[in-house]
Amino acid sequence: MDKGSFTALGIGCAPTLDLAQMMAHKKAIVDKMSTRVHSLLHKQGVTLIHGHAKLAAAGQVEIRNAEGARRTVRGASIVIATGSEPIPLPFAAFDHVKILDSDDALSLDRVPRHLAIIGAGAVGVEVGSIWRRLGSRVTLIEQRDRICCWCDRDVTAALERSLKQQGIAIRLCSDVIGVDKRASGVSIQLRTATSSTITTVDADAVLVAIGRRPSTGGLNLAGIGVQAGAQGALLQQAFAQRGPAIWAVGDAAVGPMLISKAEEEAVACAERIAGLPGFVDYSSIPYVLYTRPEVAMIGKTVDELVRVGAPYKVGYFPLATNARAAIDGIAEGFVKLLVEARTNRIAGAHLIGPGAADLISQVAIAMEASMLCEDFAHICHPFPAWSEALRQAAMAAGGWATHI
Amino acid sequence: MDKGSFTALGIGCAPTLDLAQMMAHKKAIVDKMSTRVHSLLHKQGVTLIHGHAKLAAAGQVEIRNAEGARRTVRGASIVIATGSEPIPLPFAAFDHVKILDSDDALSLDRVPRHLAIIGAGAVGVEVGSIWRRLGSRVTLIEQRDRICCWCDRDVTAALERSLKQQGIAIRLCSDVIGVDKRASGVSIQLRTATSSTITTVDADAVLVAIGRRPSTGGLNLAGIGVQAGAQGALLQQAFAQRGPAIWAVGDAAVGPMLISKAEEEAVACAERIAGLPGFVDYSSIPYVLYTRPEVAMIGKTVDELVRVGAPYKVGYFPLATNARAAIDGIAEGFVKLLVEARTNRIAGAHLIGPGAADLISQVAIAMEASMLCEDFAHICHPFPAWSEALRQAAMAAGGWATHI
Repeated sequence: MDKGSFTALGIGCAPTLDLAQMMAHKKAIVDKMSTRVHSLLHKQGVTLIHGHAKLAAAGQVEIRNAEGARRTVRGASIVIATGSEPIPLPFAAFDHVKILDSDDALSLDRVPRHLAIIGAGAVGVEVGSIWRRLGSRVTLIEQRDRICCWCDRDVTAALERSLKQQGIAIRLCSDVIGVDKRASGVSIQLRTATSSTITTVDADAVLVAIGRRPSTGGLNLAGIGVQAGAQGALLQQAFAQRGPAIWAVGDAAVGPMLISKAEEEAVACAERIAGLPGFVDYSSIPYVLYTRPEVAMIGKTVDELVRVGAPYKVGYFPLATNARAAIDGIAEGFVKLLVEARTNRIAGAHLIGPGAADLISQVAIAMEASMLCEDFAHICHPFPAWSEALRQAAMAAGGWATHI
Repeated sequence: MDKGSFTALGIGCAPTLDLAQMMAHKKAIVDKMSTRVHSLLHKQGVTLIHGHAKLAAAGQVEIRNAEGARRTVRGASIVIATGSEPIPLPFAAFDHVKILDSDDALSLDRVPRHLAIIGAGAVGVEVGSIWRRLGSRVTLIEQRDRICCWCDRDVTAALERSLKQQGIAIRLCSDVIGVDKRASGVSIQLRTATSSTITTVDADAVLVAIGRRPSTGGLNLAGIGVQAGAQGALLQQAFAQRGPAIWAVGDAAVGPMLISKAEEEAVACAERIAGLPGFVDYSSIPYVLYTRPEVAMIGKTVDELVRVGAPYKVGYFPLATNARAAIDGIAEGFVKLLVEARTNRIAGAHLIGPGAADLISQVAIAMEASMLCEDFAHICHPFPAWSEALRQAAMAAGGWATHI
């Protein structure tokens, strides 16, 4: 909730920011989660070796540690889980002070007066939303004609409107043709497709968030006969020319770069190496934008359904009509459910509003259970709860919404 | 989040309360929702008649309006949806100033210095949690040996601990034997089962929250041959001795007094009157306590499973281990999933912690879809999200939790 909502609710609040404490909290949480993972690995008998690894030969990994010492580890299966790294602009390398990557942008020691962000994808809108709420002027620069282009068009329109209302400047259809460092910050030159005029955005710093690429360079993939795809992405099971299987999971493997997708692949990979059935249902992996308002989606978009000519129904429900939203003073956001007209199964869901990240799992469960939209519309929810909006959307798809 | 959590996150906050504004907000929301329901009724062609109704004869309802004028309405079906009313103490009638019902307790014009609450059921703990957060000293008085006795024992233990930590006094195993009004407030006499000593609690006002009863008095039920059950509750379909069917829905009908149960019954009743199949699955109606921390449950408790001798497994996951909880600085709360050992289906779920009211619907969907716990454990959730805790609990029930 923002300050306005608190006031409407009768709660006066003049928040102050202690950025150093906020960063300390962030570090403490990251450390805690990292320590926990280490201890879980230890408990499971996993040996952790620090160093740079490369595939040496069939079933062999050569590791060079910080002191330059080399050792070779052999295994019947090799899993590549090297993650990904931010892609730099070709003409403006990261200097981590004025030209920032996403890690830098989450570790600033003061609130920038003006933060420019190149790329209005997930990282761009999330980081922009954070710093705007902490007081920065924020300018989002995007090459395409809308932000987060893989999302539902109604959702991105609503998010764009909300971010602008919060004071974020959004420059669409804009190519960045130069970034100059100045004593006081950076100067970014933009050109739009429709005009030959070059405009300039001056900011304290610029976050380059034009995408990430798999960190698979230096692994000697080609040397052992493994072909990497676009920007170094590997197939989840990339058999070497001879010898044991080579697996890839997470950002190093093809597909969306999401922790949840990585986790699914890791579990399925471990199951298959152990000789068990293991699979990932890529069609029901949720995507979330941790912006304010929060965005979550799962399954197909309207564009995708139209592309394959699949008849569909839309169940739309505005959160303003939800009791919990009314209580919390929330007037924006909606649930949009897409239903396959032929089967009455849920094809996708697109949510914008508070708690979207938790609500989307309800659709994930319904989709995994191949539940008919009509059955989904019969689920009894607590009152008042955000989740009632999902039910009303399902009812709307069936033509019997009771609240609209 | 409380002030301590905000401080840990680097946000300074000295909230002030404008109770009049908060009450105005509450009234505005109630009015808005009421207006919306009126407009939905109007749109559907429903005629609304104000007055006191009684069942006059087969298929006839006699209505007396505020001016005393009478009219009779005839119908092929009669639905009783008169709701419920708070039960008073036999020796202390509601005066709505010092001896309060739940409506009064949500409409106070100042924060009581000390609010006593008789009955630690849903209304008692919810109202107590509200006024404690707004600054009142609160004393909860309960006849039984625990609060909210229909809930899971681990949940009520955790809730009791948390409410006490927040400064709410809880007096269990205590019979109220007298309530005296004083100039300055009320004086309540208590006796415990284990001691003959009478203790006294002095408070500004007392909320009597010992239960609610169906508002079915004065309907002339007996006169047309309809037998009401305990405290006036009706069966959902109570056929009169002759003539058209009489239906009951919501608090007037037997079962838990929940809006969501009422809504289910209303839909099913309308469907059946229209000749369509309509049913309510009472085994998958969620219960919520809107306390801080929030509580939600669905399905069976351990006590119920033990009573029928059903073998079960428990999947337990503490929220402190959930990433979203860590980020928000939440250390209390858990998910407890009960799984039928013979079928591997989910028998119940008991949640305490932020967002429980929305999370419980995930279990409702899984139960309605007769999903195996193992399949529920394979659902992919966003990261970070509260709902991951449900997955981990399902994994724990199957013996393969990855985060504990």
